[in-house]
Amino acid sequence: MSSEFGNILRVGVFGQSHGRAIGVVMDGLPAGEEIDLEELRRFLDRRKPGGSPLSTARKETDAPEFLAGLEGGKTCGAPLCAVIQNADQRSKDYGELQDKPRPGHADYTAWAKWDGRADMRGGGHFSGRLTAPLCVAGGIAKQILARRGIFVGAHLAAVAGIPDRPFPLRPTAELFAETAAKPFPVLDNGAGERMRAAILEAKDSLDSVGGVIECAAIGLPAGLGEPMFGGVENRLAAALFGIPAVKGVEFGEGFRSAALRGSQNNDPFTVEDGRVRAESNHAGGILGGITTGMPLTLRAAVKPTPSIGQAQKTVRLSRMEAAELTIRGRHDPCVAHRAVPVVEAVTAAVLLDLLLEGNHGTF
Amino acid sequence: MSSEFGNILRVGVFGQSHGRAIGVVMDGLPAGEEIDLEELRRFLDRRKPGGSPLSTARKETDAPEFLAGLEGGKTCGAPLCAVIQNADQRSKDYGELQDKPRPGHADYTAWAKWDGRADMRGGGHFSGRLTAPLCVAGGIAKQILARRGIFVGAHLAAVAGIPDRPFPLRPTAELFAETAAKPFPVLDNGAGERMRAAILEAKDSLDSVGGVIECAAIGLPAGLGEPMFGGVENRLAAALFGIPAVKGVEFGEGFRSAALRGSQNNDPFTVEDGRVRAESNHAGGILGGITTGMPLTLRAAVKPTPSIGQAQKTVRLSRMEAAELTIRGRHDPCVAHRAVPVVEAVTAAVLLDLLLEGNHGTF
Amino acid sequence: MSSEFGNILRVGVFGQSHGRAIGVVMDGLPAGEEIDLEELRRFLDRRKPGGSPLSTARKETDAPEFLAGLEGGKTCGAPLCAVIQNADQRSKDYGELQDKPRPGHADYTAWAKWDGRADMRGGGHFSGRLTAPLCVAGGIAKQILARRGIFVGAHLAAVAGIPDRPFPLRPTAELFAETAAKPFPVLDNGAGERMRAAILEAKDSLDSVGGVIECAAIGLPAGLGEPMFGGVENRLAAALFGIPAVKGVEFGEGFRSAALRGSQNNDPFTVEDGRVRAESNHAGGILGGITTGMPLTLRAAVKPTPSIGQAQKTVRLSRMEAAELTIRGRHDPCVAHRAVPVVEAVTAAVLLDLLLEGNHGTF
Amino acid sequence: MSSEFGNILRVGVFGQSHGRAIGVVMDGLPAGEEIDLEELRRFLDRRKPGGSPLSTARKETDAPEFLAGLEGGKTCGAPLCAVIQNADQRSKDYGELQDKPRPGHADYTAWAKWDGRADMRGGGHFSGRLTAPLCVAGGIAKQILARRGIFVGAHLAAVAGIPDRPFPLRPTAELFAETAAKPFPVLDNGAGERMRAAILEAKDSLDSVGGVIECAAIGLPAGLGEPMFGGVENRLAAALFGIPAVKGVEFGEGFRSAALRGSQNNDPFTVEDGRVRAESNHAGGILGGITTGMPLTLRAAVKPTPSIGQAQKTVRLSRMEAAELTIRGRHDPCVAHRAVPVVEAVTAAVLLDLLLEGNHGTF
Repeated sequence: MSSEFGNILRVGVFGQSHGRAIGVVMDGLPAGEEIDLEELRRFLDRRKPGGSPLSTARKETDAPEFLAGLEGGKTCGAPLCAVIQNADQRSKDYGELQDKPRPGHADYTAWAKWDGRADMRGGGHFSGRLTAPLCVAGGIAKQILARRGIFVGAHLAAVAGIPDRPFPLRPTAELFAETAAKPFPVLDNGAGERMRAAILEAKDSLDSVGGVIECAAIGLPAGLGEPMFGGVENRLAAALFGIPAVKGVEFGEGFRSAALRGSQNNDPFTVEDGRVRAESNHAGGILGGITTGMPLTLRAAVKPTPSIGQAQKTVRLSRMEAAELTIRGRHDPCVAHRAVPVVEAVTAAVLLDLLLEGNHGTF
Repeated sequence: MSSEFGNILRVGVFGQSHGRAIGVVMDGLPAGEEIDLEELRRFLDRRKPGGSPLSTARKETDAPEFLAGLEGGKTCGAPLCAVIQNADQRSKDYGELQDKPRPGHADYTAWAKWDGRADMRGGGHFSGRLTAPLCVAGGIAKQILARRGIFVGAHLAAVAGIPDRPFPLRPTAELFAETAAKPFPVLDNGAGERMRAAILEAKDSLDSVGGVIECAAIGLPAGLGEPMFGGVENRLAAALFGIPAVKGVEFGEGFRSAALRGSQNNDPFTVEDGRVRAESNHAGGILGGITTGMPLTLRAAVKPTPSIGQAQKTVRLSRMEAAELTIRGRHDPCVAHRAVPVVEAVTAAVLLDLLLEGNHGTF
Repeated sequence: MSSEFGNILRVGVFGQSHGRAIGVVMDGLPAGEEIDLEELRRFLDRRKPGGSPLSTARKETDAPEFLAGLEGGKTCGAPLCAVIQNADQRSKDYGELQDKPRPGHADYTAWAKWDGRADMRGGGHFSGRLTAPLCVAGGIAKQILARRGIFVGAHLAAVAGIPDRPFPLRPTAELFAETAAKPFPVLDNGAGERMRAAILEAKDSLDSVGGVIECAAIGLPAGLGEPMFGGVENRLAAALFGIPAVKGVEFGEGFRSAALRGSQNNDPFTVEDGRVRAESNHAGGILGGITTGMPLTLRAAVKPTPSIGQAQKTVRLSRMEAAELTIRGRHDPCVAHRAVPVVEAVTAAVLLDLLLEGNHGTF
Repeated sequence: MSSEFGNILRVGVFGQSHGRAIGVVMDGLPAGEEIDLEELRRFLDRRKPGGSPLSTARKETDAPEFLAGLEGGKTCGAPLCAVIQNADQRSKDYGELQDKPRPGHADYTAWAKWDGRADMRGGGHFSGRLTAPLCVAGGIAKQILARRGIFVGAHLAAVAGIPDRPFPLRPTAELFAETAAKPFPVLDNGAGERMRAAILEAKDSLDSVGGVIECAAIGLPAGLGEPMFGGVENRLAAALFGIPAVKGVEFGEGFRSAALRGSQNNDPFTVEDGRVRAESNHAGGILGGITTGMPLTLRAAVKPTPSIGQAQKTVRLSRMEAAELTIRGRHDPCVAHRAVPVVEAVTAAVLLDLLLEGNHGTF
């Protein structure tokens, strides 16, 4: 069991990069939810490569076909299955890699786990391509959440060490929409320019860069989540680490809180319109694993793309000897900007699951 | 469902800070495993407060009684249940807090979730006291792992922004033991001195500080973990966020990798003694969610203790109006050093679960 | 993972027959639920042996102590833990059994699974004694359900082939209470007399008899349960087979429906008080795994007690040779009547879990 | 969460009877397993209708297309996805049923759960058609098990009260193959003739009949399964009740054991070839939820097809008033014989999951 997450709403992805198709099953969706396929397409376009020197030239056809669970544009209670055909496969690019694992990729660990029997062409089931069906699921979840006043948005908080400005204390749905509409999802366009330059410079050096994504959710009620291991943080982190290249997840101030004092990090409570609010949000909208009703904020660290054009040291598995590898083919010098909608997608799917599960505090 | 984690080995904790007892159930332990209770006691002592100006004066009796699952000093296949009586309860210290939630604590979110019906004396089920039964479970897991050559160790990587040096590329069981034996668990004693000074200074200012814990596991086979959402990172993060005050989890370089280039972050493969090894370990021993056989390394961010002696803004829930709160009673100006064995405990329990589950790549 | 069930409400039991204590943890209970301990004691008394020639002479002290989760007589949101001390242990009775597995018991399978390392004194974790903590959990669930108009009741539908009359089409809470108050839980007292005679006759022949338990739940809403593998039947059966000696579970007409025609087995729909009702209830209140709103009815088959006083063929495991075994000590010639409240308990706990999970059909 | 089962190996089905396609995802299959598609086709043919007066005239194209997880005829470690297109849909036959729920079907409970928003054409996701992808999963599991000497077979134990003879004490793979090759899967052909006559007679009366399926698995090791709620019985029952029309599940003697004496029902142990064996198998190969190493035997009760040609009482939901319904279209007068391979399929998938999970008794 591996490629699924969720409790009431189960989201499971399938497919290999160079197999026949990739897809997703969502089991547990409520019925009667209208899905705007045009809006979904726009969401999927945000993670699409192509058209820009920042991304791989691989042309992906990400148009999902709905095999089940969606009738007349509405969910029907049965599990939803969406499939994306794999059109543009150039497996020949990957021949050598079967024997020479790419540093930083799952090639070697897959070899160790499946004794060389996994289909690892193009990264196989570990490929970033699997984030397309994840975005189908998340795009659907986002629409269902939005109908209930819950919005999820994200931006590139940093690339190659160049920071964007953070979300404001109370981000709005409009800010999310505005950021999503940008070709490069940052709040500060100047920072975005510097990030793009850094990506292109890395590309020119046959290298790659990483980044940080900040994601927020607004409109959540207070009291969502369970204590200890059933907390909102636990469940979000468990899913977010399933996004390829994510190596860190933090909520609110996260690692930065470790250098703060309690008097700085505590969020003073106050009353606004008869409801409890916090004057700051270092907690990222979560205390004790349970939502406070303030915006939920999290950050995910995306490592630099492991596929780089430079010669790298590796091993030849068949002979168990040292070897050198120069990866050819098309590769993203940075995947962090394309991962922005993926982080939104996974966050939205987990939050929908939590909302469907409900708050069992009282009954 | 909340206070449990694990798949084959389920670890569930129970108890409230000021209830009758706290405890843990481990369901799925292998039978015939000898548990050295003296070694377990020493492990539990590492998270104990008392005896030092760095910690609360509350004297905890952490001696676990084994009600089930342990016969003649050995596990017997049936679920293990260990109970720790709550002796030193001063509930009167917490009276005012029922109506005035402490900033940074779960008081308010528990109130929102359970509609004011939770037992939140001393933090209730959210109290750091619940880490004692977690350490019983983890201490048992550590012994079972050690018997198979797998060792888990941790140290304080930072307090109040003061860094310890990191674990070396290949930490040893001896280094873990040495660090564990120190009264203050750092690698660089000089850094430790500066950290302790910072903690005492915060205490004197009626304030608190946070920290970062680095944890490593050695001896793991390559190929452990499942792809995507069943990865080692996913499962560790899901459990680690259950430790009170943890707000961030990262593996290997984690957030720092986001500022590195691919050529810096990729770990070159090499062959050592006929086995694949990496020359560096930025990946923290995990690629694609699956172990590489290199040391697993992770870091957890611990926020500054929310209980501070300064007056803080809060609300009076019964009247839904602004209020001020000065927390009295005994509080740790820092919990990060006490959380070091807790991070080890949770890591060990998750790794034992993964090992029991096995590697299903081939059959 | 084994001794737990449930999704939102997790119920896990621990303990061995001759260990220090047995107990139960309920994780996920709503807060603020008042538990009437006197009513719970009466419920527990229904499964207690002693006082009757029909049961073992072992005197069990089934008084649960609540270590956590119950404060001031009310649930408090945190996991509830109840412990029952094991007072009356006569381990010497079971010495020979370590090497000679009792036919019909788990002795041999436990030996095979745990390589002889399990604590199987008195049946260990497989003992019927573990149904005491199950009844604590179920008794609590019954009280929470009753407060919402949902009642669970059961009776002995047959012993040794002697049938009781079935529950009427619409059993009432009064009928459940009346049956529960009887020393021998049947609807037809005459049938009960014949059953008791059969039990005593079996006892005199150093033999034992089995029985069938019918259980019903009233007050459930229509629409509870999920399709296919998440159905009410699936979840009840998964839990009910955890009761020692249960070898069959059926809903509504169950196995008898296999000999009926569709025109006989289908339940005609009708309208009553503006709601859909069925004129008969062969479906046992479940269609497609989902509740119809009619009474839920199920039957569980309880095999004859495997412990009998006659000499039986077995093997001596240490020498792997044929052997004979005459079980001494105290044994129930029938456990079916004592299992009646246990079936109620497990049914109530599963139904409470389903209700807490809610109906996710629409959102 | 609903249409999935399994722990290490997750099997999830999707699709509605009259949607675009149905299918299955198997997540957690070992890699490198060769799948004989011709053998799989023969297995799928066993549940196919058509060609016989005993079944519906609907011509189903059950040929699965493998979208993922199967490369070069072998599993590759990634989730396997197989899809079956829905070709022959006559939705017009079902128009009236949207408002008038068919007695004995899930129409009403689906309406109650999803507030009338489910796609229930042809039974929707509850249709027997969903057993086709289940058989794809089970057929694959059977091949993987057979390679390890574990065989699963089934036969019609009864139809309309007419019994077949039971499996012998030690059924063989040859007997399973022989029975599977018959057009009507019984051991006693004479009984089969009488069953077929009963089915045709019911058909002529515009009625239907039910049946009982006996399934056995040979070659299992002793010690498989977990105590209490993680037992082999629990997990098999939880999955088997997901097969449409199954209303009862029993192991070994099951309900018949309730009328036996302990001396009759206990299976005497003996030693054969240095291993523990039982002289009889009333336990169905399971004691305490754990396998004994004897053949696993279970029986599932299949209710009579609820779709019958006679006029039936129902309600008009839109007006909440009594109504009459005569179901037209094509219907099976019995589904029990077609369910025989489905019971095999589900049993095989659960057993493979249990084997993959392993025996955690010792480590």
